[in-house]
Amino acid sequence: GHIIIVGWNERTRRLIYLFKENNQKPPAIVLVDRTCRSNPLPLTFVHFIKGDPTVDETWQQANIDEAEKIIITADQSLKEVEADYRSTLLTITARGIHTDIPIFTEVLTEQQKNNVQRAGATEVICTNETTSLLIYQEMLGSGHAKTFDYLASVLSTQKLHLQSISKKWEGHTILELTHQLQKEGKLLLGLVREEERIINPDPNEKIQAGDQGIYMD
Amino acid sequence: GHIIIVGWNERTRRLIYLFKENNQKPPAIVLVDRTCRSNPLPLTFVHFIKGDPTVDETWQQANIDEAEKIIITADQSLKEVEADYRSTLLTITARGIHTDIPIFTEVLTEQQKNNVQRAGATEVICTNETTSLLIYQEMLGSGHAKTFDYLASVLSTQKLHLQSISKKWEGHTILELTHQLQKEGKLLLGLVREEERIINPDPNEKIQAGDQGIYMD
Ligand SMILES: [Ca+2]
Ligand SMILES: [Ca+2]
Repeated sequence: GHIIIVGWNERTRRLIYLFKENNQKPPAIVLVDRTCRSNPLPLTFVHFIKGDPTVDETWQQANIDEAEKIIITADQSLKEVEADYRSTLLTITARGIHTDIPIFTEVLTEQQKNNVQRAGATEVICTNETTSLLIYQEMLGSGHAKTFDYLASVLSTQKLHLQSISKKWEGHTILELTHQLQKEGKLLLGLVREEERIINPDPNEKIQAGDQGIYMD
Repeated sequence: GHIIIVGWNERTRRLIYLFKENNQKPPAIVLVDRTCRSNPLPLTFVHFIKGDPTVDETWQQANIDEAEKIIITADQSLKEVEADYRSTLLTITARGIHTDIPIFTEVLTEQQKNNVQRAGATEVICTNETTSLLIYQEMLGSGHAKTFDYLASVLSTQKLHLQSISKKWEGHTILELTHQLQKEGKLLLGLVREEERIINPDPNEKIQAGDQGIYMD
């Protein structure tokens, strides 16, 4: 199956290059945009469709029935709230045509998160939320702390996982578990315990039944 | 000194609330925007100036001489490249008036990174770069891997640091160093070695002279 990406912008450009750089054989990508005149990318695995994704025909042209995933990005030419209205509309359209395809929708404003979820998005990606946290961290930094750059390094070289912690670890400390996991090349960042996320927990904290580990490898 | 933030958008809204939520006494903020009619935020520590930051008078009004930091955000109403041209212009203007104030400038496109640096930005913040990496990770995720949410948790609860590793650790392994640091509540994410960043290094890797640690606490 191919991946349908809606919206041409700097984020989708980079996203497509990430697929290229990280795969010997990148997945087929159908890029849908209503303003670009022609395929903005000289890449053979990218097929371009100029069309309006609020109408069913565009999705049929993009062969939604055989697609694997859909990514809907925020329309940069609109104001933030209006971009979110549009993303909601596009999500409803795609969801109406295909009931169970994973749809990842980018949302710019906090208030529209719920609507995009209601429209049928599988994952709502609140990019401004993470971005403002990054800027905040960068500002607090001493000038040596290049939070953006470090996170980019983390994200481009590591995968983040969530996994149940084996029963045998119950009662043992975070310190012990981290040490053991690291021998296997896994770096434990934190726990998910009863829906709550605990990043960099106290080393003496004891593992409880039901704890899950967030780690990278 | 106060903080000057240029541009009203969802990122600056969240950024200002981060200052509010994380400080008993938040720093004074001067928000400069050319389109907003009046102060968009009902917060006493935020002073609003409606004005064009390509002219010196606006910066004088914002009392740049006594400011501590400047944040210039991308203008959402412009296309990405044009938003970057504008950010370059604003950076040049601010740098021309104040030679040594830290200026953090958001850049949307890769090509304009250098120009913003040349214009005098202290830190260039490439938000689209990090965002596309996040979306990429999210897409690869099994659906359990909520990369965005985890990173938001990391960023909102932890600080990232870079620090030289004490000489006594030379020749010891990453596994040993991680274990010791964790006892002090510090989680070692990786190394900076000869300009190169190594995230989640091999546990048996030996510490070398000059290595610096990237850790959170
Ligand atoms: Ca930086
Ligand atoms: Ca998510």
